[in-house]
Amino acid sequence: MNAISKPTINWSTRRDEKRRRMGSVSSIVNGKIIPTQQINTALESLIKSGDKVVLEGNNQKQADFLSRSLSTINPDVVNHLHMIMPSVGRPEHLDLFENGIARKLDFSFSGQQSLRIGQLMEDGLLEVGAIHTYIELYARLYVDLTPSVALLAGFKADRAGNIYTGPSTEDTPALVEATTFRDGIVIVQVNEIVDDVTDLPRVDIPASWVDYIVQADQPFFIEPLFTRDPRLITDVHVLMGMMAIRGIYERHNVQSLNHGIGFNTAAIELLLPTYGEALGLKGKICRNWTLNPHPTLIPAIESGWVESVHCFGTELGMENYVAARSDVFFTGQDGSMRSNRAFCQLAGQYAVDMFIGSTLQVDGDGNSSTVTRGRLAGFGGAPNMGHDPGGRRHSSPAWLDMRSDDHLLTKGRKLVVQMVETFQNSTSPTLVEELDALAMARDYKMPLAPVMIYASDVTHVLTEEGIAYLYKAESLEQRRAMIAAVAGVTPIGLKRDPEVTANLRAAGLVAYPEDLGIRRSDATRDLLAAKSIAELQDWSDGLYQPPAKFRSW
Amino acid sequence: MNAISKPTINWSTRRDEKRRRMGSVSSIVNGKIIPTQQINTALESLIKSGDKVVLEGNNQKQADFLSRSLSTINPDVVNHLHMIMPSVGRPEHLDLFENGIARKLDFSFSGQQSLRIGQLMEDGLLEVGAIHTYIELYARLYVDLTPSVALLAGFKADRAGNIYTGPSTEDTPALVEATTFRDGIVIVQVNEIVDDVTDLPRVDIPASWVDYIVQADQPFFIEPLFTRDPRLITDVHVLMGMMAIRGIYERHNVQSLNHGIGFNTAAIELLLPTYGEALGLKGKICRNWTLNPHPTLIPAIESGWVESVHCFGTELGMENYVAARSDVFFTGQDGSMRSNRAFCQLAGQYAVDMFIGSTLQVDGDGNSSTVTRGRLAGFGGAPNMGHDPGGRRHSSPAWLDMRSDDHLLTKGRKLVVQMVETFQNSTSPTLVEELDALAMARDYKMPLAPVMIYASDVTHVLTEEGIAYLYKAESLEQRRAMIAAVAGVTPIGLKRDPEVTANLRAAGLVAYPEDLGIRRSDATRDLLAAKSIAELQDWSDGLYQPPAKFRSW
Repeated sequence: MNAISKPTINWSTRRDEKRRRMGSVSSIVNGKIIPTQQINTALESLIKSGDKVVLEGNNQKQADFLSRSLSTINPDVVNHLHMIMPSVGRPEHLDLFENGIARKLDFSFSGQQSLRIGQLMEDGLLEVGAIHTYIELYARLYVDLTPSVALLAGFKADRAGNIYTGPSTEDTPALVEATTFRDGIVIVQVNEIVDDVTDLPRVDIPASWVDYIVQADQPFFIEPLFTRDPRLITDVHVLMGMMAIRGIYERHNVQSLNHGIGFNTAAIELLLPTYGEALGLKGKICRNWTLNPHPTLIPAIESGWVESVHCFGTELGMENYVAARSDVFFTGQDGSMRSNRAFCQLAGQYAVDMFIGSTLQVDGDGNSSTVTRGRLAGFGGAPNMGHDPGGRRHSSPAWLDMRSDDHLLTKGRKLVVQMVETFQNSTSPTLVEELDALAMARDYKMPLAPVMIYASDVTHVLTEEGIAYLYKAESLEQRRAMIAAVAGVTPIGLKRDPEVTANLRAAGLVAYPEDLGIRRSDATRDLLAAKSIAELQDWSDGLYQPPAKFRSW
Repeated sequence: MNAISKPTINWSTRRDEKRRRMGSVSSIVNGKIIPTQQINTALESLIKSGDKVVLEGNNQKQADFLSRSLSTINPDVVNHLHMIMPSVGRPEHLDLFENGIARKLDFSFSGQQSLRIGQLMEDGLLEVGAIHTYIELYARLYVDLTPSVALLAGFKADRAGNIYTGPSTEDTPALVEATTFRDGIVIVQVNEIVDDVTDLPRVDIPASWVDYIVQADQPFFIEPLFTRDPRLITDVHVLMGMMAIRGIYERHNVQSLNHGIGFNTAAIELLLPTYGEALGLKGKICRNWTLNPHPTLIPAIESGWVESVHCFGTELGMENYVAARSDVFFTGQDGSMRSNRAFCQLAGQYAVDMFIGSTLQVDGDGNSSTVTRGRLAGFGGAPNMGHDPGGRRHSSPAWLDMRSDDHLLTKGRKLVVQMVETFQNSTSPTLVEELDALAMARDYKMPLAPVMIYASDVTHVLTEEGIAYLYKAESLEQRRAMIAAVAGVTPIGLKRDPEVTANLRAAGLVAYPEDLGIRRSDATRDLLAAKSIAELQDWSDGLYQPPAKFRSW
């Protein structure tokens, strides 16, 4: 080594800087507690221009006291922040950019804010780093997007800084670990501060990972995003649900699964205790689940179908029900749910047989996207659930059933089912010639179209017309014909050749309801185990407490 | 719902059973502390026949007091255990089966014990559930392999049960979470018990997740598995390392990466401060790493090449060095490393440009395996690092550089580089007609051959002969010709047609050293930034403290 000169390097710049910043707020903090009224002053001292700041906007819970505060600090003091956000869900998330405090954004999902992101980009006020899936964004926190500051949310803290997140633990562990273990500053807003750790129901995040806590001016914002009112489930959904159970779940022996959040899959959940039971399938399929605690799963749970459910996050109203069903759900010593999006994503990726979900557009090859023009909606978790994980090595019957031959080098596959009605409404076909995502990529000069699930990963397309068993396709041409065979009167469907379709049905590559022994006339809402939110509550013995907006009584 | 009868179900059998078991040891425990001498009695009461038990055998650290104790409990009292083990590394792990205490095994990796697993299977004493990768095994803990009991290891605990794992946190968070949040019993062996949480350097696992702690009879076993002595790096390794830097890292602009643990990649680490510096690449490539703290990375770190390293686990001897380089490594408030295999696997899967590693056998298509006949060695983490993650959505220059065209639906790819010498030794070719893994699958009636990395995921094969840029192959035939072109005098290599090879080189599909501007005569050990363990220690300013077996002075 003698020939090589070693540069002189300070190896603890991050730690030194953290100490310096913490020193600068020593006069306003009380131990780890930032007084509520001092939050802006504290943020202006603890955050520096250009910092990478991770802000907990989850799928549901929002560190909204901290985001509201941050959006009102002085942009002359702090600016050019690089925001890292799993979910961009609130107006103040973008006020940060409009007000000149933040400049760059790496994110996963943006619901209602997606249009405004595009506008801010056009106005030159916001630069997008990349759009990720949730787990991909967490991953980058450990590689090239390590935050200097994390702004997080929990239910309660003790004065030492131990955090009780409540049932909505969600992203917090993944975000806090990347920050605290690389000398970043962790600030957690809580609804309540208690004196001692013994006053906390349980500890979700230990005090030694937390630098500051602050009591929020009001409890953090949380939304019931995964509640589907059974009244909106149609006879068509029921027909599709019956096909799914008969033609996919039963046929491939699906044991473990993840459901999307549409009415289609809600219908399946409500058909298990009726149609599924009549088929004699209870205890034979659908035993282990990875999904949020959907209220529409209650009848299946109560009927004894469900052995376990691990959750990404929680769902408002389901708290008491989950706590009373501890054999099924993952709960803490306090009895309430412990969710964890990172681990649930892992579970849904590597340990389940099937993902089934809906989407807005599918092209003739089978690529799909929820992107529509001008809206940078992001990816969320669907691309992780909806692909065949190349790093999987264990087998299951359903996984092996996807093999094209039994050569020892031929792997099984995860079942990835796209379950869509052929039309979104009378004028918008779901099956389209080209995804809007491509126009979006051209408009925003993105290197790739924002595709949610790629055709090569999709094993089945299920519409109200039938099921295309795409994993059996022997050519791209055959695959297209199979999709067309179930595409109804969409532009894709109108191209089909009736003779080809007949051959596909005869060969078992496509199945229509009658091919599965399902009479369309049987497919009515009468088959649903619950037809309203009130009936879900009945099933739960009153434990499920639906939020006001879902109550009609 | 009126038509459907609801069965009467006890929803808290797991919680009730946990309470019952904990009650049965109340007379021998002192709060959460199991007296060391009472461990067998406690295990016989806390564990029940047929239980799923997760035992922390990590890549490095071992809950060996608990495994030794478990292997000597009374098999008349506890038997038919279903053991879940990331790593089967110690003799007593298999004594459990020989002694009739355990019956079924789900695992990820088994090093020296792999031959004996096969023997116990043949003797009918051990049934393998499945062989997983690490992260896949964690995933199943949240789906269909939730443990009733977890036996784990840490450095220190306080009397309340807060755990300090030390730098080797590794698998502990993933294992504890799945157990504690589904009413399993968590027992942690520690080297030392202190009175109060303030006596712990930091908290890695909060007390509310831990049911019992026990002071081990001796500190847990830990091995330096990732230390490669530079004296064993050959001129051939240097040549291959130069080709990697020039023909892959520089060419594709590799910013973030994961290295395997062979001498090949150790050579690359030691060439960055010399050959890499001469090429003017410092600060331009290889900035963010996901790997264990390899001692051979020290010169690159000291020369200012490395911005960050996130680690699966730690490495014996590197503790002080890591603690003194907190800008680079992830460390806790105590200054010592925080590793985390689950998050590092995520990072290595979703956030890095490249995996490069060695293997024992590669077939003519590019499939590879480390399995040799009769040895059920398992997968570890390589299949997760060594595949193109289908759920990735963000771009990077290297990732985009793998595209075959610039259509908006054409994704980039992770670089997956297999770096092998054409022969393992004078009689064993690395490039083979058929992987031994296939014979293994036939012998053990496995549904699939235990392939480590599939051909479809490999983008480059690098041997001492040259680089095959497989991602450019337009057909399976061309792919085979490219591999043959760098396969030397192996059976695969002997099949090549010189004219085809010349065409492949001319087309840039294969590159030999001279095609990359590398003179074979320049490739000598003189280029290594350190040629011995002692020189690594010098580079570290004495902070690296090599274990005795690596000291020659």
